[in-house]
Amino acid sequence: MNERVGFAGLGIMGSAMAQNLLNAGADLTVWNRTPSKRATLVAAGASDASDLPALAREAAILFICVSDTPDVEAILFGDNGLIEGLQEDALVVDCSTVSPSATKRFAERLANQSVHMLDAPISGGSEGAANGTLSIMVGGEAEQVERALPYLQVMGKKITHVGGHGAGQMTKLVNQILVAGSMLSLGEALLFAQAGGLDLERTLEAVSDGAAGSWTLTNRGPQVIKRDWSPGFMIDLQEKDLRLVLQEADELGAPTLGSSITFQLYRSLQRRGLGTQGNHALVRALEYVSSIQVGE
Amino acid sequence: MNERVGFAGLGIMGSAMAQNLLNAGADLTVWNRTPSKRATLVAAGASDASDLPALAREAAILFICVSDTPDVEAILFGDNGLIEGLQEDALVVDCSTVSPSATKRFAERLANQSVHMLDAPISGGSEGAANGTLSIMVGGEAEQVERALPYLQVMGKKITHVGGHGAGQMTKLVNQILVAGSMLSLGEALLFAQAGGLDLERTLEAVSDGAAGSWTLTNRGPQVIKRDWSPGFMIDLQEKDLRLVLQEADELGAPTLGSSITFQLYRSLQRRGLGTQGNHALVRALEYVSSIQVGE
Repeated sequence: MNERVGFAGLGIMGSAMAQNLLNAGADLTVWNRTPSKRATLVAAGASDASDLPALAREAAILFICVSDTPDVEAILFGDNGLIEGLQEDALVVDCSTVSPSATKRFAERLANQSVHMLDAPISGGSEGAANGTLSIMVGGEAEQVERALPYLQVMGKKITHVGGHGAGQMTKLVNQILVAGSMLSLGEALLFAQAGGLDLERTLEAVSDGAAGSWTLTNRGPQVIKRDWSPGFMIDLQEKDLRLVLQEADELGAPTLGSSITFQLYRSLQRRGLGTQGNHALVRALEYVSSIQVGE
Repeated sequence: MNERVGFAGLGIMGSAMAQNLLNAGADLTVWNRTPSKRATLVAAGASDASDLPALAREAAILFICVSDTPDVEAILFGDNGLIEGLQEDALVVDCSTVSPSATKRFAERLANQSVHMLDAPISGGSEGAANGTLSIMVGGEAEQVERALPYLQVMGKKITHVGGHGAGQMTKLVNQILVAGSMLSLGEALLFAQAGGLDLERTLEAVSDGAAGSWTLTNRGPQVIKRDWSPGFMIDLQEKDLRLVLQEADELGAPTLGSSITFQLYRSLQRRGLGTQGNHALVRALEYVSSIQVGE
């Protein structure tokens, strides 16, 4: 870890990841749109950049962790964006989940200025970010993956180089198709069980270890039964990721019979003001269409 | 295991389960519609019943393991069915996956003749049946579950008493909602990855350990990539189980947004003559609607 590191985007995920870089001895400068969020990290020893061009002038490796494609674009290429200060041969590592096609365009635009880019979206939730056990799906050139690896290993447990620019984002979307699908089955299965008068805890116990088993069933099933909608991963973000899936799938001609439904259901929950609840609250959309309630 | 045991239905599952009873020292009589399938078990020491009434006269505990609701009904109440020979206080244990409502009616009809019934559908595939590691979801009276337990423990690893008559069948259908849903997500995710030009093995590796992880992803994902459609569980049976889900859900008013789609897709594969392939071949239905092929 002998290069100076910058971190832009100190949300729940970003601040925990930046903290892990700091703990591991990285020479770290941070930036966040809302300055107050920098305080904890600065108190812990990080430098504070006055703006994004200053951050870019400070650091050779720059991590970005924000919500959506336009946020990444603004941080990179907007007025007063990183682009105004980036060093030659700098490396931008984008840990946000954003459009794979846009990612390819960003990487090309940076390459024209002799700046490298990796897409490195993360999975594993706030616990994974805090504990440094994230799964990180990396797209880009092998040499730059090598360069970023010591830093990524501080933040994640499983780092997979999955292909060229955008491949990390594509793999993250594959992950989200699977996650959202498992939420639909979980909701449908538990409402069916509820309507049939089954004991839901006993039911989960009976089906969790066999061919029906999944991370979602084990970790979110008990939460659904207790109607505990606190987020491991928020509906607002799950909905955004599914929109990326549908857009990308449309360009590629890939079928999205299940993902289209889960998108619509998350969208409806968002419209009801439930966007900050956990993605396992998908069952609530099924409750609205059936007037059966789980855990009654 | 001090009661005489009968076993009707010696398919892939039934014959392996009967073999495990025999291995454990059960005093076993077998019957199968196609007599040739009895030969191995008879050679291994089982008795051979000339017909179902004879089987019922021989045994105090009778296991049934056949395909669908009408098969169970015929074995129990048909001409020359078990009903013509059942002993007072006998126990019928139905390991087939059939209609929960019909199961309740069967149990009632048997109770009128002082015969007990348990529904005890199984999960875990042919390997589970062979190794005695099935999950068994049992519905019925606690006292009879107690009585059947020594025999069930020879065939299964996880035996869960989930409720009264029909609750075992309901729980199995919950299991099948989850399994079929996971097959839809798997197919959709892999076709998306394929269309996006990802390395599919690398993709599976990157997403299998996190929140997207499931038994299906780990066990069937690699099979799909190799286009190996050999069945762990056949489409013909998966389709039948989903029909039971949809019928039961309709009676209960439970929503089946995902299960309805998977049913239709399995139905279409059946119509194409692929009913004996494994349920992970669901992806082939998505291939037909998208003209993208996985593992090309």
